[in-house]
Amino acid sequence: MLTIYGDRISGNCLKVKWVADHLGLSYRWVDVDVVKGEAKAPEFIARFPMGQVPAVLLADGRALAQSNAIMLHLAEGSALVPADGFARAEMLQWLFWEQYSHEPAIAVRRFQKHYLGRADAEIDPALMVKGRAALDLMERHLATRDWFAGTAPSCADIGLVAYTRVAHEGGFALAEWPAVQAWVRRTEAGLRISG
Amino acid sequence: MLTIYGDRISGNCLKVKWVADHLGLSYRWVDVDVVKGEAKAPEFIARFPMGQVPAVLLADGRALAQSNAIMLHLAEGSALVPADGFARAEMLQWLFWEQYSHEPAIAVRRFQKHYLGRADAEIDPALMVKGRAALDLMERHLATRDWFAGTAPSCADIGLVAYTRVAHEGGFALAEWPAVQAWVRRTEAGLRISG
Repeated sequence: MLTIYGDRISGNCLKVKWVADHLGLSYRWVDVDVVKGEAKAPEFIARFPMGQVPAVLLADGRALAQSNAIMLHLAEGSALVPADGFARAEMLQWLFWEQYSHEPAIAVRRFQKHYLGRADAEIDPALMVKGRAALDLMERHLATRDWFAGTAPSCADIGLVAYTRVAHEGGFALAEWPAVQAWVRRTEAGLRISG
Repeated sequence: MLTIYGDRISGNCLKVKWVADHLGLSYRWVDVDVVKGEAKAPEFIARFPMGQVPAVLLADGRALAQSNAIMLHLAEGSALVPADGFARAEMLQWLFWEQYSHEPAIAVRRFQKHYLGRADAEIDPALMVKGRAALDLMERHLATRDWFAGTAPSCADIGLVAYTRVAHEGGFALAEWPAVQAWVRRTEAGLRISG
């Protein structure tokens, strides 16, 4: 059986959980406390050298890390991965953008503000600038499209919704980006995510 | 015909060029000067909303961005994308790791040191720490493996070699990581990269 190592406060980990739940996969969930540094513990690194969650052991015992790579592997052959080659490429484009230009601003600012309890003045102002730019780009895309890749929900939407839906915890009020806010609700409804 | 918009000082852009050359694709190359901010110019953004290079126009006129997504799209069906599902997942794992944990340290430090001419004391020390950790992880992987995904060179190797081969320009002396250094030479030889 699939084993998912993750922390429920991490959007990256929830991406994998949502895909597994949506596809009806059986799995065992093992909690790894990121704030306590459990992903950097020697016994974890021995199995998962990248020292990050989420990470999974597949049914055959092979290890895989990186939220977006795990999602794509679990979802291969399902409707969450477009059959059309260009739509697949668009999905990958957005997932790489998410890890480079979205998560390092929006998720990092949320972690510092919401989980570490830092005051706004103690947080690098570049995170707000970069996070707002990411939401602006998503808003422009969603002015003419319902989903990020192709014409149906895909792993790109799951990857992007993970930290966008909790962006307010990082100080980004989604009411400023109405198309993004509507897409978050659409994606949550499709995945039956709440709370 | 494929059109590649890129800057030859950018390893991300070279990834796409190397894949196109390796596969024998015909393309037109359009220089975009990153240091002069040409990727943020309104006419560029109008076509490529992410405002980054590399970006491509496919033969049918559709636009695609993000180095790793472009590489994977161009290479689909070739030997650079493993046919085996797990090896593909490993390739994606390393490519996502590259954009999150390798490029933001090694490429960014190189840009600041080599292209902006900053003194070491003016560069965030975290970049050296994070870059060294990335090279350490690659060294450990290469202790038992010749390539990053599966048993043959793939887009993962091309993605990782782009900034690893010029890491010395960022202050990382690859002689400290001999397995990485040998893999760089192996990958360069396979791609016929020099200089």
